[in-house]
Amino acid sequence: MAVLRTNQMKIVLDAMGSENMPAADVAGAVEAARVYSQDEIILVGREELIQPELAKFDTSGLNLSVVHAEEIIEMTDKPRKVVRGKPNSSMHVGLNLVKNGEADAFVSMGNTGCTLAVSMLGTLKRIAGVKRPAIAAVFPIPSRPILLDNGANADCDAENLLQFGIMGSIYAAAANGKPNPTVGLLSNGEEEGKGNTLVQEAGELLAKSSINYIGNVEPKDFMQGRVDVAVADGFVGNVMLKTAEATAKMLTELIRTEIKAGVLSTVGGLLARPAMRRAGASLDPDEVGGAPLLGVNGVVMIGHGSSGSKAVKNAIGQARQAVDSGIVEAIKAGIETG
Amino acid sequence: MAVLRTNQMKIVLDAMGSENMPAADVAGAVEAARVYSQDEIILVGREELIQPELAKFDTSGLNLSVVHAEEIIEMTDKPRKVVRGKPNSSMHVGLNLVKNGEADAFVSMGNTGCTLAVSMLGTLKRIAGVKRPAIAAVFPIPSRPILLDNGANADCDAENLLQFGIMGSIYAAAANGKPNPTVGLLSNGEEEGKGNTLVQEAGELLAKSSINYIGNVEPKDFMQGRVDVAVADGFVGNVMLKTAEATAKMLTELIRTEIKAGVLSTVGGLLARPAMRRAGASLDPDEVGGAPLLGVNGVVMIGHGSSGSKAVKNAIGQARQAVDSGIVEAIKAGIETG
Repeated sequence: MAVLRTNQMKIVLDAMGSENMPAADVAGAVEAARVYSQDEIILVGREELIQPELAKFDTSGLNLSVVHAEEIIEMTDKPRKVVRGKPNSSMHVGLNLVKNGEADAFVSMGNTGCTLAVSMLGTLKRIAGVKRPAIAAVFPIPSRPILLDNGANADCDAENLLQFGIMGSIYAAAANGKPNPTVGLLSNGEEEGKGNTLVQEAGELLAKSSINYIGNVEPKDFMQGRVDVAVADGFVGNVMLKTAEATAKMLTELIRTEIKAGVLSTVGGLLARPAMRRAGASLDPDEVGGAPLLGVNGVVMIGHGSSGSKAVKNAIGQARQAVDSGIVEAIKAGIETG
Repeated sequence: MAVLRTNQMKIVLDAMGSENMPAADVAGAVEAARVYSQDEIILVGREELIQPELAKFDTSGLNLSVVHAEEIIEMTDKPRKVVRGKPNSSMHVGLNLVKNGEADAFVSMGNTGCTLAVSMLGTLKRIAGVKRPAIAAVFPIPSRPILLDNGANADCDAENLLQFGIMGSIYAAAANGKPNPTVGLLSNGEEEGKGNTLVQEAGELLAKSSINYIGNVEPKDFMQGRVDVAVADGFVGNVMLKTAEATAKMLTELIRTEIKAGVLSTVGGLLARPAMRRAGASLDPDEVGGAPLLGVNGVVMIGHGSSGSKAVKNAIGQARQAVDSGIVEAIKAGIETG
């Protein structure tokens, strides 16, 4: 299926997104505009807040523009209330630019639930046939495996999980450069028959699908790169992602504390520091930056509220790659054929 | 409630349990008999396999005995089949010693599903009022938090989770020395209203209970020791435990690889090695050794199939502590009062 695009891509960034908005968001947009100089980065939000941040950088020659949006969606806002309650938010304005074909992708570090609600209910809507869009998290570990859903749907049925598998497979292939990616079902054991009722039912559907489904996978299979895509309901997926992050943080803190406890080990720690930093970088969420919301009728990339400029820049890079691979058209086709 | 026991404790060890049975199991029993010299360790299993292993140690003066059991439950055996299909297994014989008052606790590194089935259906049975016994995993991290269920029940309802909270609270208080332990409900966000339907329903029940319930907790709260007990269904709990283990393993391997990649960092790594080893020991599952099966009518401690002698010895130590604290009587009382 051919995808029609102009050569120049237009990426919208929600400038009111991150906890440090608009500073981190604008700085990330400037970094992205330098790296992806052929494309246009459109900052959406309160112009009087964005311009002073932009003025801190030398933006001459950069392809950056600003579109004003009067309202701001806060981290504490409720998804159900903002869809109609804040129709002039940076999310609404930015997502409508994508909906109306004036931009190719929308990127936000803002309130995840509100981004979902405004995308699905207020602006882009779902791709026909997709029951539940899902957030696909690319884990910042060497093999870059994809886990979905990562929190969009706390309660799922087996057909939802089947569609997550199809969409995850397409994303891994198209945007992440993994041909014929392997897809597993996250479970508490590899053997057939393991898992809860939902996993057992979803396994039957996935086995009949046309994707490269390899059966149940345990967390260790995922972390060691034995599978490209793992499917879980949004509650389990989010607990898994957060557990991995919390464990990595706890372990690095333990090592730091123990190293500082002795003279020899302190010297050793200093000598080994660059190596440990490289190991840490392999697990840095900012290296990925954003997670795509798969199943909506447009490219949407969601990042952590705590993102800094590097994460913002990388999320924009991921959005470019997703647009470039024609992910929305591919999901349309994939959901039709199963 | 008074607990009547003789001063000398009798702990049964399933000598046919671990993947390296009976070598690892017997070696662990010998270590335990040396440390807990006032108590008796009863090895149950095929005598002709146990005696040659025992002969490798100087057991003079140790309070070790052997009870023969003809059948062996394999890691590949199905729980439903062994309850009636292998009535002379080391699990049946050992658990019946506890049931008949001839021993105080049963410890096995064997097939977890079979241990559950033989305990619940074939021998000890459940404590009256307990709907689903649960496996309570003590995480081998500095604050020693407890997560349950850890795999006994893949599908749960809200009342199951309420009972897990009550039993986990009692275990943390009685056997782990945590007075008035805090209990949280594992969720994908701390805010009320977060979580799937099961978690939201269970939260309402837990809030009305008499335990020290503090609401939803995220994985990071648990890993950082902000809660003594976290409650989850057995599928989520098991995925969380396995994710933490897999992440710790992956991170230590990454650090090792990066340190070995350079001369300076290799020297640094050597100097820092004892400190890193101490950090690693804080996360060593063998330091805990066993997870209690709470809710059955007797003390049952379950360990990893891959356990070595240290884990076996520590699981026996945990079983002693559980018996000493009168955990079964405490759960009987706790489930009655809610």
